[in-house]
Amino acid sequence: MRNYKITISYDGTGYKGWQRQGLTEQTIQEILETSAAQLLGYPVELHGSGRTDAGVHAIGQVASMKVAGLLPEDFCEKWNCILPDDIQIRSAVLVKSGFHGRYNAVRKHYRYVVDMREKPDVFRRKYACHYPQELDVEAMEQAAGQLVGTHDFTTFTDDKSEKSKTRTIHKIDIQKEGNLLFIDFYGDGFLYHMVRILSGTLLQIGTGEKCVADVSRMLSSKERQSGGFLAPAKGLFLVEVEYD
Amino acid sequence: MRNYKITISYDGTGYKGWQRQGLTEQTIQEILETSAAQLLGYPVELHGSGRTDAGVHAIGQVASMKVAGLLPEDFCEKWNCILPDDIQIRSAVLVKSGFHGRYNAVRKHYRYVVDMREKPDVFRRKYACHYPQELDVEAMEQAAGQLVGTHDFTTFTDDKSEKSKTRTIHKIDIQKEGNLLFIDFYGDGFLYHMVRILSGTLLQIGTGEKCVADVSRMLSSKERQSGGFLAPAKGLFLVEVEYD
Repeated sequence: MRNYKITISYDGTGYKGWQRQGLTEQTIQEILETSAAQLLGYPVELHGSGRTDAGVHAIGQVASMKVAGLLPEDFCEKWNCILPDDIQIRSAVLVKSGFHGRYNAVRKHYRYVVDMREKPDVFRRKYACHYPQELDVEAMEQAAGQLVGTHDFTTFTDDKSEKSKTRTIHKIDIQKEGNLLFIDFYGDGFLYHMVRILSGTLLQIGTGEKCVADVSRMLSSKERQSGGFLAPAKGLFLVEVEYD
Repeated sequence: MRNYKITISYDGTGYKGWQRQGLTEQTIQEILETSAAQLLGYPVELHGSGRTDAGVHAIGQVASMKVAGLLPEDFCEKWNCILPDDIQIRSAVLVKSGFHGRYNAVRKHYRYVVDMREKPDVFRRKYACHYPQELDVEAMEQAAGQLVGTHDFTTFTDDKSEKSKTRTIHKIDIQKEGNLLFIDFYGDGFLYHMVRILSGTLLQIGTGEKCVADVSRMLSSKERQSGGFLAPAKGLFLVEVEYD
């Protein structure tokens, strides 16, 4: 058996997210596994760094994949040929047998893209959240500063499981470029809907609908309703997954 | 009768171009006219600044439209509501009755976008020409310099009519941003396929397949086959149309 680290880009628009859900749903994982099996002649399983929701995009999703032997040099090229043009294998690198796409991920970078034009940019309609508001970026940056660090993020997730909701956010960068706003999140891992709820919260702080002073109260309340709205999936990109 | 100058953005991916071709084909003009007539209660005609080919995009296409009386203030908003999300009315401005979208256009700006990454950018797959080559931008700029001015562009068009092929290019800007190349054309008007053939020619000069020294010979030959290849429609954007 050989183990490969696969890096994948995809436009999530037409898909039900990463996670396989049965053969009738169009998911990224299922399409990748089916197409790889078609080339290899036997079934394989991909272990993604994490699930991305329906409509969420990825520039650099990572998955591990165990195969019977060394992959031929042109495997990626062949794989891309049979994949739809909105899913692309960027690389397949031989790694140690213990490497696991999910368990070994130590840091993730997500980007949330906001289109602030009054009328949405036609060419960003699938790749940004349209939010035609004057935003107080300074207030958003102050709020972001309070979200950075190790916290219980129960307020900012729709995850209803009993598992720990404590995560560490290393950095949140907010950058305005013309009518676009980019919110970059770097952390050790993110809970279900967490980046989208944090983005929604920051946008509401940007419009003054929520206050910077409330952020610490939101965190300590551990109640989803005190957090902001769930920003739409189409504005979210999984940019990079880091491993040790 | 009132006359309006309409500015339109569209993602040309799913359309057979600007020009109405009968009711079975999906064209931008037909969709705009049908939807406007639906709101107005009577048929209208749009006179675009020019045709864009199937698959070509527009950030600021302009058309004139005569209507029976003043348009209500929320007309654009209502129009956008019934238009598909890849066609957008940016503005509708009342103009003099003599204004004509095509005849009064004095300057156009087209942009050609090239994706030079080895593997195409998934998010640009419909909005750039994938051309994974090392390009000599300096040579391209020298060639562009020779194309600027008033010339007979017979070599660089697929227009087979008897009409004059003389046009004036005011400026060609070539700009590299990471793995993207932008070629901006400014001129008084462009012939059928002209911007795409000029882009193809410049790309072939960038790879060394054609020589800067040949450009004047290409122009004077007046033979299509001495020009470069027809670059794909999806890389082309009509950015702006200017009027006096």
